[in-house]
Amino acid sequence: MKKNVKVGIIGAGRIGKLHAENIAYHIPEAEIVAIADVYADQIREWAANLGVPMVTNDYKDILNNPDIDAVVICSSTDTHARFTIEAAKAGKHVFCEKPIDLTVEKVKQAIEAVKEAGVKLQIGFNRRFDHNHKRVRDAVLEGKIGAPHIIKITSRDPAPPPIEYVKVSGGLFMDMTIHDFDMARYLSGSEVEEVYASGAVLVDPAIGDAGDIDTAVITLKFKNGAIGVIDNSRKAAYGYDQRLEVFGSKGCMMNFNDTPSSAVLSTVEGVFSEKPKYFFLERYKDSFIAEMKEFFNAILNDTETPVTGIDGLKPVLIALAAKKSMEEGRPVKIEEIEKAF
Amino acid sequence: MKKNVKVGIIGAGRIGKLHAENIAYHIPEAEIVAIADVYADQIREWAANLGVPMVTNDYKDILNNPDIDAVVICSSTDTHARFTIEAAKAGKHVFCEKPIDLTVEKVKQAIEAVKEAGVKLQIGFNRRFDHNHKRVRDAVLEGKIGAPHIIKITSRDPAPPPIEYVKVSGGLFMDMTIHDFDMARYLSGSEVEEVYASGAVLVDPAIGDAGDIDTAVITLKFKNGAIGVIDNSRKAAYGYDQRLEVFGSKGCMMNFNDTPSSAVLSTVEGVFSEKPKYFFLERYKDSFIAEMKEFFNAILNDTETPVTGIDGLKPVLIALAAKKSMEEGRPVKIEEIEKAF
Amino acid sequence: MKKNVKVGIIGAGRIGKLHAENIAYHIPEAEIVAIADVYADQIREWAANLGVPMVTNDYKDILNNPDIDAVVICSSTDTHARFTIEAAKAGKHVFCEKPIDLTVEKVKQAIEAVKEAGVKLQIGFNRRFDHNHKRVRDAVLEGKIGAPHIIKITSRDPAPPPIEYVKVSGGLFMDMTIHDFDMARYLSGSEVEEVYASGAVLVDPAIGDAGDIDTAVITLKFKNGAIGVIDNSRKAAYGYDQRLEVFGSKGCMMNFNDTPSSAVLSTVEGVFSEKPKYFFLERYKDSFIAEMKEFFNAILNDTETPVTGIDGLKPVLIALAAKKSMEEGRPVKIEEIEKAF
Amino acid sequence: MKKNVKVGIIGAGRIGKLHAENIAYHIPEAEIVAIADVYADQIREWAANLGVPMVTNDYKDILNNPDIDAVVICSSTDTHARFTIEAAKAGKHVFCEKPIDLTVEKVKQAIEAVKEAGVKLQIGFNRRFDHNHKRVRDAVLEGKIGAPHIIKITSRDPAPPPIEYVKVSGGLFMDMTIHDFDMARYLSGSEVEEVYASGAVLVDPAIGDAGDIDTAVITLKFKNGAIGVIDNSRKAAYGYDQRLEVFGSKGCMMNFNDTPSSAVLSTVEGVFSEKPKYFFLERYKDSFIAEMKEFFNAILNDTETPVTGIDGLKPVLIALAAKKSMEEGRPVKIEEIEKAF
Repeated sequence: MKKNVKVGIIGAGRIGKLHAENIAYHIPEAEIVAIADVYADQIREWAANLGVPMVTNDYKDILNNPDIDAVVICSSTDTHARFTIEAAKAGKHVFCEKPIDLTVEKVKQAIEAVKEAGVKLQIGFNRRFDHNHKRVRDAVLEGKIGAPHIIKITSRDPAPPPIEYVKVSGGLFMDMTIHDFDMARYLSGSEVEEVYASGAVLVDPAIGDAGDIDTAVITLKFKNGAIGVIDNSRKAAYGYDQRLEVFGSKGCMMNFNDTPSSAVLSTVEGVFSEKPKYFFLERYKDSFIAEMKEFFNAILNDTETPVTGIDGLKPVLIALAAKKSMEEGRPVKIEEIEKAF
Repeated sequence: MKKNVKVGIIGAGRIGKLHAENIAYHIPEAEIVAIADVYADQIREWAANLGVPMVTNDYKDILNNPDIDAVVICSSTDTHARFTIEAAKAGKHVFCEKPIDLTVEKVKQAIEAVKEAGVKLQIGFNRRFDHNHKRVRDAVLEGKIGAPHIIKITSRDPAPPPIEYVKVSGGLFMDMTIHDFDMARYLSGSEVEEVYASGAVLVDPAIGDAGDIDTAVITLKFKNGAIGVIDNSRKAAYGYDQRLEVFGSKGCMMNFNDTPSSAVLSTVEGVFSEKPKYFFLERYKDSFIAEMKEFFNAILNDTETPVTGIDGLKPVLIALAAKKSMEEGRPVKIEEIEKAF
Repeated sequence: MKKNVKVGIIGAGRIGKLHAENIAYHIPEAEIVAIADVYADQIREWAANLGVPMVTNDYKDILNNPDIDAVVICSSTDTHARFTIEAAKAGKHVFCEKPIDLTVEKVKQAIEAVKEAGVKLQIGFNRRFDHNHKRVRDAVLEGKIGAPHIIKITSRDPAPPPIEYVKVSGGLFMDMTIHDFDMARYLSGSEVEEVYASGAVLVDPAIGDAGDIDTAVITLKFKNGAIGVIDNSRKAAYGYDQRLEVFGSKGCMMNFNDTPSSAVLSTVEGVFSEKPKYFFLERYKDSFIAEMKEFFNAILNDTETPVTGIDGLKPVLIALAAKKSMEEGRPVKIEEIEKAF
Repeated sequence: MKKNVKVGIIGAGRIGKLHAENIAYHIPEAEIVAIADVYADQIREWAANLGVPMVTNDYKDILNNPDIDAVVICSSTDTHARFTIEAAKAGKHVFCEKPIDLTVEKVKQAIEAVKEAGVKLQIGFNRRFDHNHKRVRDAVLEGKIGAPHIIKITSRDPAPPPIEYVKVSGGLFMDMTIHDFDMARYLSGSEVEEVYASGAVLVDPAIGDAGDIDTAVITLKFKNGAIGVIDNSRKAAYGYDQRLEVFGSKGCMMNFNDTPSSAVLSTVEGVFSEKPKYFFLERYKDSFIAEMKEFFNAILNDTETPVTGIDGLKPVLIALAAKKSMEEGRPVKIEEIEKAF
């Protein structure tokens, strides 16, 4: 099997394993040369089954390996910026899970390091590669709905993460809504100028005790005049709710949730169809493969990656603006956040 | 045909004619005794065909007619409060089209007059009687979605009204969104405490020149902790878009647009289904009959009307708060508006 | 209220009352002058409320009334042909509920009598006037699906009729499928040449004991080469199932059931939407009004009625062929049935 | 990568390549040791990329290879029975594409050979493993629709095969409907007793000239009393139409087509959703993987395969009955076909 890009994976938790398996089974354009994880011993058998020749507990073994062209950074968020910078300096192309960092400074440093090194950087906003969302985006680009006027994003999780995770997550806006902020930019083809965020603790008081919210409605104003609105919940009883709607001068494009099957049961009690696919691993399965394929193709063809460093920075700025808006009970301009740095 | 409530209709424009025809053809509980319109001559033939014995150009002929039990006020908005007050004083029950008035003072005066006279008052928020919206409301009341967390209302017209109308309409919030503010209260079973409104002129610059907006996203905070969001446009290319969604602790209830038929055509070009019913006359046809039926039943059974004077006042307050929010770029509490009067 | 056609109604059972109320409330083109029913006393109050001046227990009072232009025959099936013939001879236009008769001879006699008298005849195949079915038919006529290849009709009742009714109904094909045979002709724009019917008793053994079936699949061959298939059940647990599909060289047009609302509830248990409208009174409400309107318009404008005597005869022939096919376990040509008479 | 079952693939046309790639990329339970194809040279590069060590133009190299546990037979239909018999004699487990043969004798010989050799046999009725169809089947098994009364299968191809293929295909019933006959057995949990088939040439006269039909409606009677109906077309303008419906005493389970996305576009021209996935490679992608996984698991766990030799024989009998029925214009019992052999 001809593999072109030699890859090292840093971090083999849930998402690291997912990317590794996708590369091994679905992406002929790349070959995994090594995987680094602090718990190296726990992944050796899994890695061997994938055909990965080397496992290490030191990510530097990957950065120092001259055979490796690119790294996929799947370690914890606090290491993303540092590993990106070091990898760039070592001349490796970088695929980095979102967010690059919770602070604007570090995100900017990472982007700068990548720029100086002349390597490629792609951020893991996988939802852009989803068949349903992409179809909406394509229709907008093709002019099918005319100029966008109203952009709506519904994004609700099936269940909140553990409280221990909530505490270090950076908050709902940085942890969960950040995907929606990216989606808002992607769909509108415009930049967010102003944010107004309303948040509440309605799902679990423990989330409030941890200083976070679990329910939110966020209004966005875009440079092109469009208005956006995102609604989030940490818990939708019926599962992962991921819908978009772009309304414009010529019409409206919306999508619906994917379901395990299209079957419909009619009985005396009603007409039942299936709940959405359970969570992001099921729902966005193919998008994880597609984003990785595009990353390796960008390397092979020396083209720009589809989700750049700026695409990693902007949602962090919007998330910070949203947080400030909610705390201060007023709309906040992105410019105000940018100036603070 | 046994008719119980004797009715006089004041104003026979589009909506007045609609109510008159509904009463004549669909509501055995009531009988139209007289219709008043400033252009009385133009409606004589139409009224005769309906079997209405008397047409006058002076609404006082109706108020002074001792045989008349109730009036249906369908004249221009600026006369609603005055006619309501005079009708109450004349001892007539009042069905008044929305809004009672664009000012809080007059709305309060009308409510007060009705109270003093001991007559019944119902406001024309017909959408509460719509089969689709009512089904959502019922599910909320039955506890099927648990405690409401997020309430979403999409309300888009197929085409903007004439500019001359826009100028005297009281603005988008008072003219169009007022239905959605009523719906938000109806669905949530709670009162709106705070409003944040974003507006834009994206459909027609002439609307902006007239001092109004044509596109809006409005965030609502409810007393029960829920967050609401309404999105409006004066022009949806595909027609009248009227959808609701209430998301709560146990699930989500949403509805979709009614269409002229359920037919679906699949060809080489795609799978086509029908656009929504064109506008409010088609879409809310049955709700106009239902609201009137309930008004007459409230009279006959001496029960409270389903949409009271307070239900007429609250949306006016919310609309004023929305306007102030948009003008001042900040969230506005309803309390702040109430205190101003 | 200007009413043009003076109508007498013969038979005020469920369907007679329905037509009377539709004419009284929804059809300004006609005025009910008299209603005849063998139980005249039981309908006097109801008729008075409708504003009908005369009630009689003798249908001849209607036929002999020179003021009456048209009769609506809603009496029991065994009287349809006779009353049609007598009404025609009395110079009245005739709207006759389906079927005209269970025998070909009498149907032909009725058609002949109408022809000789030069009056109009319309058969009560109301489903042709249904918004959903009409939309499919229109698409076929407009050439949107090209030449029809396969025509599918699903027609299932929510519950079987009483056994006493089953015994005199003429059997499933004559009582229930007859509507579908009419629909097949209406949709295909072609005549049925051959029928193959499979029947079974799966719902209730008592139906089998009464010599009838409760479940059937019927294949039709049309003159234009298309193949049709009808499936029937006397009992669908989820309610009245009425769907069509026409597949042709350019595409496929299908429709779905109407529901009381478009609301959808998502919970941990699944995604629920509403069952179909319960039965024909709810589902085909508007079609009963539409067929009657067209009947009166045909009289007023002296045009052909939309469902003629031949349209009443053909489904009876097809039903007889279906019965013979099932009994003899072979496909039966319509020609074979026609020749027998 | 630990692979358990050593596989040889015989025939590397479209379906052979599909199975090979599925095994290589998606099925860790098996490892391809060799591929035989008469045009071996044309597949060497493709096979090398898959990591397959051996390519041969002689299928006997596979049968004689003692390292090989199982064969996947994807050669032309006329070789299926012979290769199955030879593989069984060589002690290999057999996955054989449908149909085993166009004649009952050879199918029986193949089944007999497999039985004598004590190896496993699975037939390639992949649709049983489709998520949508499986969901319907599961609901039937779980008793959700009660006793099945009516079973409906719609199966339409997006375009007819080349005329050269039509000539050797065995005819529509044996080539295309055979999948639906299998599905009918799968869904009903019962055996077909009698078949009545109507066929027509409506898509392309050349298909008629080749002695075949392109449009069909087939009625089935099942042992359990249910009635089934299949409708087929060689050309649906809107693509591959694959829908099922099982109606029973407690309700109805149906499914719909899969689409490339769930996106819906509303414009002034209508409401557009996507056409079905184009053809079987797209639509049944996952089912091909699932059937193969189950085959290897049956070998590894020494359990019965999910689609046995009998499951390969029955649809051939039904197809022969359907052909006879159409030719002779009468219903044909399966027993009649069975007795002929």
